[in-house]
Amino acid sequence: MKPIFRQVALVGKYHASASPGQASSTHAALSGIAEFLASEGCEVVCERDTAASAGLTGCRALDIAGIGAECDLVLVVGGDGTMLGVGRQVARFGIPLIGINQGRLGFITDIPLGDYATVLPPMLRGEFEEDQRSLMQARVLRGGDAVFEALAMNDVVVNRGSTSGMAELRVEVDGHFVANQRADGLIIATPTGSTAYALSAGGPLLHPSNPGWVLVPIAPHTLSNRPIVLPDAAEIAIEVVGGRDVSANFDMQSLASLQHGDRIVVSRSQHKVRFLHPRGWTYFDTLRLKLHWNEGTVI
Amino acid sequence: MKPIFRQVALVGKYHASASPGQASSTHAALSGIAEFLASEGCEVVCERDTAASAGLTGCRALDIAGIGAECDLVLVVGGDGTMLGVGRQVARFGIPLIGINQGRLGFITDIPLGDYATVLPPMLRGEFEEDQRSLMQARVLRGGDAVFEALAMNDVVVNRGSTSGMAELRVEVDGHFVANQRADGLIIATPTGSTAYALSAGGPLLHPSNPGWVLVPIAPHTLSNRPIVLPDAAEIAIEVVGGRDVSANFDMQSLASLQHGDRIVVSRSQHKVRFLHPRGWTYFDTLRLKLHWNEGTVI
Amino acid sequence: MKPIFRQVALVGKYHASASPGQASSTHAALSGIAEFLASEGCEVVCERDTAASAGLTGCRALDIAGIGAECDLVLVVGGDGTMLGVGRQVARFGIPLIGINQGRLGFITDIPLGDYATVLPPMLRGEFEEDQRSLMQARVLRGGDAVFEALAMNDVVVNRGSTSGMAELRVEVDGHFVANQRADGLIIATPTGSTAYALSAGGPLLHPSNPGWVLVPIAPHTLSNRPIVLPDAAEIAIEVVGGRDVSANFDMQSLASLQHGDRIVVSRSQHKVRFLHPRGWTYFDTLRLKLHWNEGTVI
Amino acid sequence: MKPIFRQVALVGKYHASASPGQASSTHAALSGIAEFLASEGCEVVCERDTAASAGLTGCRALDIAGIGAECDLVLVVGGDGTMLGVGRQVARFGIPLIGINQGRLGFITDIPLGDYATVLPPMLRGEFEEDQRSLMQARVLRGGDAVFEALAMNDVVVNRGSTSGMAELRVEVDGHFVANQRADGLIIATPTGSTAYALSAGGPLLHPSNPGWVLVPIAPHTLSNRPIVLPDAAEIAIEVVGGRDVSANFDMQSLASLQHGDRIVVSRSQHKVRFLHPRGWTYFDTLRLKLHWNEGTVI
Repeated sequence: MKPIFRQVALVGKYHASASPGQASSTHAALSGIAEFLASEGCEVVCERDTAASAGLTGCRALDIAGIGAECDLVLVVGGDGTMLGVGRQVARFGIPLIGINQGRLGFITDIPLGDYATVLPPMLRGEFEEDQRSLMQARVLRGGDAVFEALAMNDVVVNRGSTSGMAELRVEVDGHFVANQRADGLIIATPTGSTAYALSAGGPLLHPSNPGWVLVPIAPHTLSNRPIVLPDAAEIAIEVVGGRDVSANFDMQSLASLQHGDRIVVSRSQHKVRFLHPRGWTYFDTLRLKLHWNEGTVI
Repeated sequence: MKPIFRQVALVGKYHASASPGQASSTHAALSGIAEFLASEGCEVVCERDTAASAGLTGCRALDIAGIGAECDLVLVVGGDGTMLGVGRQVARFGIPLIGINQGRLGFITDIPLGDYATVLPPMLRGEFEEDQRSLMQARVLRGGDAVFEALAMNDVVVNRGSTSGMAELRVEVDGHFVANQRADGLIIATPTGSTAYALSAGGPLLHPSNPGWVLVPIAPHTLSNRPIVLPDAAEIAIEVVGGRDVSANFDMQSLASLQHGDRIVVSRSQHKVRFLHPRGWTYFDTLRLKLHWNEGTVI
Repeated sequence: MKPIFRQVALVGKYHASASPGQASSTHAALSGIAEFLASEGCEVVCERDTAASAGLTGCRALDIAGIGAECDLVLVVGGDGTMLGVGRQVARFGIPLIGINQGRLGFITDIPLGDYATVLPPMLRGEFEEDQRSLMQARVLRGGDAVFEALAMNDVVVNRGSTSGMAELRVEVDGHFVANQRADGLIIATPTGSTAYALSAGGPLLHPSNPGWVLVPIAPHTLSNRPIVLPDAAEIAIEVVGGRDVSANFDMQSLASLQHGDRIVVSRSQHKVRFLHPRGWTYFDTLRLKLHWNEGTVI
Repeated sequence: MKPIFRQVALVGKYHASASPGQASSTHAALSGIAEFLASEGCEVVCERDTAASAGLTGCRALDIAGIGAECDLVLVVGGDGTMLGVGRQVARFGIPLIGINQGRLGFITDIPLGDYATVLPPMLRGEFEEDQRSLMQARVLRGGDAVFEALAMNDVVVNRGSTSGMAELRVEVDGHFVANQRADGLIIATPTGSTAYALSAGGPLLHPSNPGWVLVPIAPHTLSNRPIVLPDAAEIAIEVVGGRDVSANFDMQSLASLQHGDRIVVSRSQHKVRFLHPRGWTYFDTLRLKLHWNEGTVI
């Protein structure tokens, strides 16, 4: 039976500064997967930087835009960070992604490297669970101009400088005043990001099917300040009202030295990222494994 | 200008066991409001129990079913509890409600008793903010039969007996296993209920426009157990696996002595409750006031 | 070399309702340990109920008072619950305890059953770490009379009935008014209890060398209500002001149906419980293992 | 009756960058208090910087060392920050402090400016509650040398840079390994500091009579990571193992750009700070007021 995905792009660990040992094991892993995909009847494309850094020569190299234009599927080999980075870039093309983790199990890269030969074939024939993730479009406005703009799959974080006091942040939702927050910072997280930094800061888990963002204060100075889940159709604006060395971080992309009056504005992107998982996958199984819920009673 | 609501039902504090002093002040309040509504051109109907307990004689008395069939608006005089009780009952009729608080400001009864004469007239003419709230349909299944059934606007709570150890509860969402929770109990809260018991137990705030429920563990025995926000389209089932004297509470309606194997099943009701607020009302203003966010820095 | 502990008492799982299979494995375990202790030069005494339920015939049987009067060391075979129960009873005699866990690692029973033959000999010769634990003396006063009295090694818990609303509890410390708490309940925990129920309810960990109790509210109705650590020299009084079916629990010992006006008074016992651990034991190693801190980054 | 405190030092807002309006109101306040103290029979000394910035000319000016050598009491006019700064400096002299707050009520500056004329006289005659606070001696060690050293009354904070990822911090207590913490940072707080930043980060309240520090992780990456209360006799060491731009903050005194291998070592100072409060003062009254426990039920 033919794969329903004809052109498959292979992307390795993104922006890697790998040691020679790692590079060689990545080369071996990617070559093996490329050969395997070819044997399954797929045409294999290698992402250009991946091909260069891993020394892959046997496949056609394309940049992300080319992959977006030509490919039917992206296979990411790496961790959750790599997967999110690639997801952000291909979201506008609507291409689905499959994640193979090289190290420990991720929240979204859920196929162990050693298992791909048995797990991928049915997925290539169309047997998979599709898991769509929303993403945020975020801008920093200064005097009306956008001085920074990025997509975020995990979160937008506004926080104080490390040796300064707290930040004072004015929050508005759809133009309505919400609160002046005095805190170390504020996180706006997607469901995907709700298992990342927002969780550390005390936020709830958001199921990916729930169309919401969660706004989580970091070390808030008012004890009644709690995480709040907002509809993702809302536009959230955070204005820097006080504090020194305040910075904004969109996933890992940072803008330091925000000024008083700067506004960080977040809205839902019109695109979604499409993750494919093996048939039978459920979000809850991953949660249980990652959060160690299966370890019996701690207390 | 004529009111857009012609038939207006008046409902007072529900199931009140009032002192004589309270009864007389409630009588005065309700009579005053009834006269006022009549002077505004509305036809006033009194809920039957309200009329009886407050001694209202000047208006036609109807039970809730009658009010549902005939009226265009329900005016509730009381606190949030009364409002939720009436909301649950008129939800299936699609009639909107306005809440007047007799005591301190509520989350949903936001018009002070002293202000109704100035606040109501524009609302009766159509100038208001509508705030729709979802509600839960909950059942207890025992061996396949529904032994208890109720609607809940706030929450469904399953918890252990007070002098017994923890409860063990198996959670499923849409038939998928989520976790075995060992805890004092579990709360499934609507956005409306997210500011009630769920908040005490450490849950996040849910904006009413977010179509989700939040599942909050009470004193969980696994430290990594966090509140999780689920899409309200999901069916949540909680099975009693262990623990003694486990009970289920749907808003204030309780079923004690659950048995092992009993399943509490929660899904979204097809109805919504429609609350009307004065023009300019926002959910966030109420949050700030109720949670004392306006009190400046505590720390 | 002779053991420094001549008379050693052996106590098995306390108040056990064991299956025949369990009873026989407990018999085997206890007999083995008894023989081993004899071979090490100790005189072995069996706690009377243990001897009866495990069918031990080869050793002299004494009740706890007798053990207290005659023995130098108590060897407990079971879990943390058994160890705490025995500890409470022998505290006034000042006899040290060693805990052997039959199942999974406990916070205080830290010698696996399979390891006793190698771990015990140096301990019997005096090579151990001593870990003293404070315990609470708690009473329920009604109209001036003590209607219930008990020692607690873990915690004193006052909580509401399971289908009733919240409890209202007035807290005093050394006669000073602290707060009226409206909550599901209140926990006063020792350092030992800080890793038990108090931890589930959101309390901090207390190192056993810190002479404090922690007062932890359960699902408090005021968001600014936080756990508070008090000096253990203080007398803490909790008065039941409101709520139905309120109960008090001292470790596992319960008094249900408290009345309004009842006062639960807690002070430090003059005795301490002495746990002995293998040389090199530290409290922090146990914490890391039990709380799974060693599992790397979850998020 | 003569005051028991003969030489009283007056200290105003420390390191103030006051506006002209503030300076003039501070001048008026301090002059008034100085006159009042003289009329009560005290000899008034002005702290040198205070005298200069507030333009006080009628009293003898001394620096802190001089005050320490000669005075019996320090009267601080300002907020909690000023009080803590002065407390740190006079701790080694054992001189008691009284705090008069110029703005809103503080945790330790509890006499309103308008009330001093009625509140101070009995205190000067010996009618007061004494409240001793422990303080921390903290050093940063690099390759064995102390590169930074300071006292802290509130807390020692080690945290990551604002646009970098998490810090990795190895914690030891009295030479025993506790845990590798991956987090935004770590706070070690005194009882005094437990109502400041540590509270924002989720720490418990510590009563000042409890001889402990609390170690609070900031946004920890392991969900089972909880605040832990340690005996203040312990020496706590935090080693920077990973992370960029890590800084250490001792109260407000910062050392940025810590290097991997740097160790922050905290132990109890041999000195205590002595705060005097009006007769009848209790710690709990202040807590209730500051944390708004008196505001009735929020939920």
